[in-house]
Amino acid sequence: MGTEGKVIKCKAAVAWEPRKPLSLEEVEVAPPKAHEVRIKIVATGVCHSDLAVLRETPLPQGGMHTFPILLGHEAAGIVESIGPGVTKFSKGDAVIPLFVAQCGECEYCLSPKTNMCKTHWEEFLKGVLLDGTSRITCQGKQITQLFALGTFSEYTVVPEISLTKIRKDAPLDKVCLLGCGISTGYGAAINSAKVEPGSTCAVFGLGAIGLAAVMGCKAAGASRIFAVDINKDKFPKAELLGATDFVNPKDYDKPISQVLAEMTNGGVDFALECVGSVEVMRAALESCCNAWGTCVIVGYVPEKDMTLAPITLLLGRTLRGTFFGGWKSVESVPKLVDDYMNKKLKVDEFVTHNLPLEEINEGFDLMISGKSIRTVIKMA
Amino acid sequence: MGTEGKVIKCKAAVAWEPRKPLSLEEVEVAPPKAHEVRIKIVATGVCHSDLAVLRETPLPQGGMHTFPILLGHEAAGIVESIGPGVTKFSKGDAVIPLFVAQCGECEYCLSPKTNMCKTHWEEFLKGVLLDGTSRITCQGKQITQLFALGTFSEYTVVPEISLTKIRKDAPLDKVCLLGCGISTGYGAAINSAKVEPGSTCAVFGLGAIGLAAVMGCKAAGASRIFAVDINKDKFPKAELLGATDFVNPKDYDKPISQVLAEMTNGGVDFALECVGSVEVMRAALESCCNAWGTCVIVGYVPEKDMTLAPITLLLGRTLRGTFFGGWKSVESVPKLVDDYMNKKLKVDEFVTHNLPLEEINEGFDLMISGKSIRTVIKMA
Repeated sequence: MGTEGKVIKCKAAVAWEPRKPLSLEEVEVAPPKAHEVRIKIVATGVCHSDLAVLRETPLPQGGMHTFPILLGHEAAGIVESIGPGVTKFSKGDAVIPLFVAQCGECEYCLSPKTNMCKTHWEEFLKGVLLDGTSRITCQGKQITQLFALGTFSEYTVVPEISLTKIRKDAPLDKVCLLGCGISTGYGAAINSAKVEPGSTCAVFGLGAIGLAAVMGCKAAGASRIFAVDINKDKFPKAELLGATDFVNPKDYDKPISQVLAEMTNGGVDFALECVGSVEVMRAALESCCNAWGTCVIVGYVPEKDMTLAPITLLLGRTLRGTFFGGWKSVESVPKLVDDYMNKKLKVDEFVTHNLPLEEINEGFDLMISGKSIRTVIKMA
Repeated sequence: MGTEGKVIKCKAAVAWEPRKPLSLEEVEVAPPKAHEVRIKIVATGVCHSDLAVLRETPLPQGGMHTFPILLGHEAAGIVESIGPGVTKFSKGDAVIPLFVAQCGECEYCLSPKTNMCKTHWEEFLKGVLLDGTSRITCQGKQITQLFALGTFSEYTVVPEISLTKIRKDAPLDKVCLLGCGISTGYGAAINSAKVEPGSTCAVFGLGAIGLAAVMGCKAAGASRIFAVDINKDKFPKAELLGATDFVNPKDYDKPISQVLAEMTNGGVDFALECVGSVEVMRAALESCCNAWGTCVIVGYVPEKDMTLAPITLLLGRTLRGTFFGGWKSVESVPKLVDDYMNKKLKVDEFVTHNLPLEEINEGFDLMISGKSIRTVIKMA
């Protein structure tokens, strides 16, 4: 009665067209082809990137995601079956799908300077697997898989290089969040900003990524962590995760960079932009001190340009971005799971809501209204 | 018949008002006060920063330079006398004035992360010395000293922390250029970009700073150095200094970033903007490869904002500025002079013109027209 080698029919939340609610459908999930793995999704978070795609945010290199599309990229599950040539996974493995692959062999993977992977990067962005097609169909139509994943489904098929094996005792409905948001914010502080012990930090925006950035600053030994948000309801959780100072720009009639400069020795050592607003990006850069201030952009805004005064750079600031927090995905995510299990890293605090797949649109609504930090969809 | 302790009357080229030719005048140079040094200027380069001030470019923190002003900040000379408390200099020392001080004691000087110095930084920018006044008067008026230097004069007085002693056998009419332009471009590649052996580099703008950046890329072991300029007459000198490829954006009808991406593996590892144009800054950033491309801004444009697409950062690029090439001034400039004397660093190649102080306005004209790389003013 095994499913191996057969098409699996299961439930999935399909985005038929932009800006419309997802539609619960029965989809067909084909067996994995060479170097692919079919997984049973146990839990999947609802992330702003899913929303961005639903709102027709362009791809990084231009162009658009192809609808209909199966969204979802922050998940955990169990291997159901493996395709030909797969050696690193077996049926029953606990796994986390990865929107940044790590093939281990390309120019990027071989460099310590990046966590990006060149292998099939363009295809994966287009929502197809190694052979240029997806494994999901619905009502006879091919459904693309966001980042070659597509986890808003009871089952999906992903490339072997976009998957990592984790310990079996980890609660999948929690560690699924290490597949995107928490790892991104946490790593932005540790790997991209390289926050130093005793330093001052400011985190702009206290959604899941910003809160994880706060946690990263604390883990790196920052002495003061300014949590900045126009929603003061976010401050208690930021405090729980390590923030020491709380700044609501609405409380001041001067630029937030000036407020922070006055509260510190002329600016913070490290600033992290976790909003995805070009105005906040500029404010974050200007909130850094002269001489060595480092600003890391975590938020994604494809539509608009950021502006900056060149002098802010000439006086010693550095501006960079982060991509999945600088973690080399396959090798790092299992370690982050270990850190969570060893209580070095908080995850439970990020889960504010749990919903069944049938109510996934409610998860989007909670995110849009700012009421949730993360909603985790638990499959039946 | 010594001059020590007395006011010295000498020739200087004074900028009485913005956008007017400099005026050759007899000025009075007061004796040095505590922790100041009076020097006989032997040679001084004419730099774009002098021109920028003459054109009323605002100060980095806002505000304006105060006219009348004695420009000039790229010089070499001989100590004439020292003020009370000066222990590191003696009459007769060969010296290079420094527009970036190094007090050795402030928070910045004690940090390995910056070459800036906090001590009297704001005063020096305003053109006055430690006590808030200048040592130069003319026709009864106080003349401010650019960056607390003012080297377009036969004599000037500078703060002890803005001066470094160099070997006596160095030709002052050459090594004066290590006081600004050459060190800035050379260090931008070595210290700020941290160009790596075997890497690909692009240098935008082949004035003195850009040519020095080319030399820095070569010294750091770059395998390919793209020299980019809309004036092809600059290419032979760039080749002499180490450039391997020459690109004139006018020869292409597509963006220069695309041209460079096609000539490399998707973009250069390091780009240096040595023009001072916000459009070129964006092009330089976009010319860097994904994953680890680093763009260093060397040119100074206070009037305009630079724009960039955040995705260029999120995909792995870093953007930073440089200030005097990242060199801690007092300790580094004597070593750069040694490197020149040991033929590790070229300087002679940058000097295209020599003029007496009386013809300094011709030096500005040569610079504006792009006919000179550097004009060195030799005092009588």
